[in-house]
Formats: sequence, C-alpha cells, structure tokens
Amino acid sequence: MPPERDTEREKRAAAEASALLVEDGMTVGLGTGSTVAFLLAPLAARGLSIRCVATSPATERAARELGLRVESFDDLDRLDIAIDGADQVAADGWLVKGGGGAHVREKIVAAAADRFVVIVDSGKPVAKLSPPVSLELSSFGLPSTLRALADVELRDAPPSPDGGVIADYLAPFTAPEALAARLAAAPGVVGHGLFPPEMVGEVLVGRGSEAQALELTG
Amino acid sequence: MPPERDTEREKRAAAEASALLVEDGMTVGLGTGSTVAFLLAPLAARGLSIRCVATSPATERAARELGLRVESFDDLDRLDIAIDGADQVAADGWLVKGGGGAHVREKIVAAAADRFVVIVDSGKPVAKLSPPVSLELSSFGLPSTLRALADVELRDAPPSPDGGVIADYLAPFTAPEALAARLAAAPGVVGHGLFPPEMVGEVLVGRGSEAQALELTG
Repeated sequence: MPPERDTEREKRAAAEASALLVEDGMTVGLGTGSTVAFLLAPLAARGLSIRCVATSPATERAARELGLRVESFDDLDRLDIAIDGADQVAADGWLVKGGGGAHVREKIVAAAADRFVVIVDSGKPVAKLSPPVSLELSSFGLPSTLRALADVELRDAPPSPDGGVIADYLAPFTAPEALAARLAAAPGVVGHGLFPPEMVGEVLVGRGSEAQALELTG
Repeated sequence: MPPERDTEREKRAAAEASALLVEDGMTVGLGTGSTVAFLLAPLAARGLSIRCVATSPATERAARELGLRVESFDDLDRLDIAIDGADQVAADGWLVKGGGGAHVREKIVAAAADRFVVIVDSGKPVAKLSPPVSLELSSFGLPSTLRALADVELRDAPPSPDGGVIADYLAPFTAPEALAARLAAAPGVVGHGLFPPEMVGEVLVGRGSEAQALELTG
C-alpha cells in the first residue's frame, strides 16, 4: 500500500474521532487544511444543531456545501471546541501550524475555544520542532522586515484573508518559546505558526485506521 | 501664558532640533502626530536631497505638500534615521506610542532606522509608564480577543491603514517588558504601542524654547 494511501486513512481516522467530540448546541471552530477536510463530512452527517466559525474561506465554503451553519466570528466571543490540523506536534505540546497560510485566524479560533483538539496523521508528531515556521507579515515595510528577521523566504501564496504576506522562517531553532517570543515582538510580524502547549487541549493521532490520543509531556 | 501655548512651543523646539540631525542623501522615516507636524516644515526648509517614508496617510500628505519626497516603503529595506513623537517616555527608555492609531507602522519604521529619534514636549517624560496602551487588533474574532484580553476598550477611531481595529489597553501595569510580551503573544493582537529601549536612539525634549537630550537610565 503506498504511503500516501496510509496518510489519508490516518487523517480520516483522526478527523472522524474528533467529530464525535462535538455535542449538540455547541459553538465549533473549524480549522483549515487537508486533515480538516476529512472532518467536515462526518461532522455534518451527525446532524447536530451547532454553530460553526471557519478559519479560512476554503473551509467556510466546504462546510456550507455540506449544510453546516457557518457564522461570522463577529457574533461569538468564545467557542466550545475548535478542531484543526498541524504540521508538526512536539511531545511537549508545542505545534507548528500554518502550511496553509491561515495560521493567524487559526490561532485566534484556537485561543477562543474552551477545548482545542488537534488532529494529525502519524507523521506529524516529532521529537523536536524544526523549520519552516509560517509567518504572516505586514506588507508595509516588507523589505525592512525581511532584512531584520533574516532567514525568511516569501511563500508563493496568495495573501491571507486579512491582507498579510505569507512567508516561512527557515533558520534552525532549539527553544520554540524563545523563537515564538522573538517573532511575536518583531515589528512587521502579524503572526507566526508556533502554538504554545497551553493552547492545546488534546492531540488525536491517526495510526492505521484508528485514532489515538497523544500523551503530551509538557 | 496658557499651558497649551508652552506645549506647542516645546514640541516645535524638539522638532526643529531633530530636523537638524538629518543630512543630505539620507533616507528618513517620518512619524505621525502633533509633534511630527512641527518637524515637516523645518525639514523641508533645509532643502536637502532626502528620501522619506511616512507612517500614516496624514503625514504623507502633509510632507508632500511641503515638497518632501515621500516614497513607498516597498522600495527601501532600511532607513538612516526616523523621527517620531511619543505619548509617554520612561526614564529607562520604554515608550508608549500610538495615540494617533498609527503605532504598527510607526514601529516598523522605527525598527528599520539606524537611528530612531523621539521628539516630545516636557510633559511626556514620566517616572513610570501607565495606561492607556494603544492596540491594533484583527477584526476577525474581535469579540473573542476583547474577552481574552480584558480591560480593553475600542477607540472611536477609523481603522489603521492596514485594516486593524484601534483599541486601548486600560489595566494598570508595572513591568512594560512583561506587558509587551503578553500583548505581542496574544492571538488577535496585530501590534501594541509599547516600544522597547533598544529601539530608541535618543529622546529630544522641548523645554521652553530649547530642546534637550533626555538622559536614559536603561
């Protein structure tokens, strides 16, 4: 069986398990990306009365087509649960997210949720995070921001829904906390793809056709 | 003499002194606000060949009207000097800026400059910074960001040039460094008005009709 096939099956397993965590009447944040794509159909199939918020136009469109009720995030000030994928999950609970360029909105939604559930295939848990780390940058003064950060490459991607420029931080790093603080404080950086452990409620990992909760050491 | 009159004279004194720091051929960042308004005419009057970048549409317009050459900040990746006002200047060099709602662009310009010169009247140096601290917030998920931050009030002001929502953080604080880190890390916060000492080259304070360099203890 080719590895692509397994990965898809694992994403589906994690996504389906997360759909079962949603309860009638909940407000639900929907992430972005290839694993979340597997969440929407089983979630819609449950026929619950839920109100959803989407982290990207792509998720909003796909969710609406399946009959899920997607609202503007202007009307809700918290969410019961949010479900999203990740590019890397470290054992201490730090995540790298944002391969899809939606990490700023994803972080706002994750932070707003009482319970943030991360769904990944078995290739995403890592011993140690590594570059690239996604960035959203202000277009104003972009050359000066790139010069100050160094080791950043613009991604060949459309701007974020908020008009930010999507880029990748490429330098090796050891302490995610220090890098997150440095990136957050850097003028011109609107947001970065490092998510701290305190934001993460649980991680569901697809292994074969099953989903397992990842034990976090953090 | 009414206090308003003194303040204007002090702003003018600081602004005129800063204009003399600009040299022929320099790239120059122009801040925003009532003190910078006093900078533009004496700077233009010097007739130097300089290239300017503006932190706000208001400054850009006023500078152009005086014949200053204002360029997009897409074409320069650093600046020789930047000059801007501040709402509060602490003795250790921390600033609060952004009463005008332009602090995100102001910080990008300040950080890009080899020399960042702050110009203020004598009412701006303080023993200790205090609220309000300006914020620029993402409009996506705004109610959840306000709920998470607490003690934040939306300002009755137009959005920033980048579409951000302008607000004020109102809770008392003791350590600007800790508050800056907390605000920078908060999802939904695009930027805040606390500027760290390492960004500040010098502070010129108008006292009466003179400008004096503020001795920073940091």
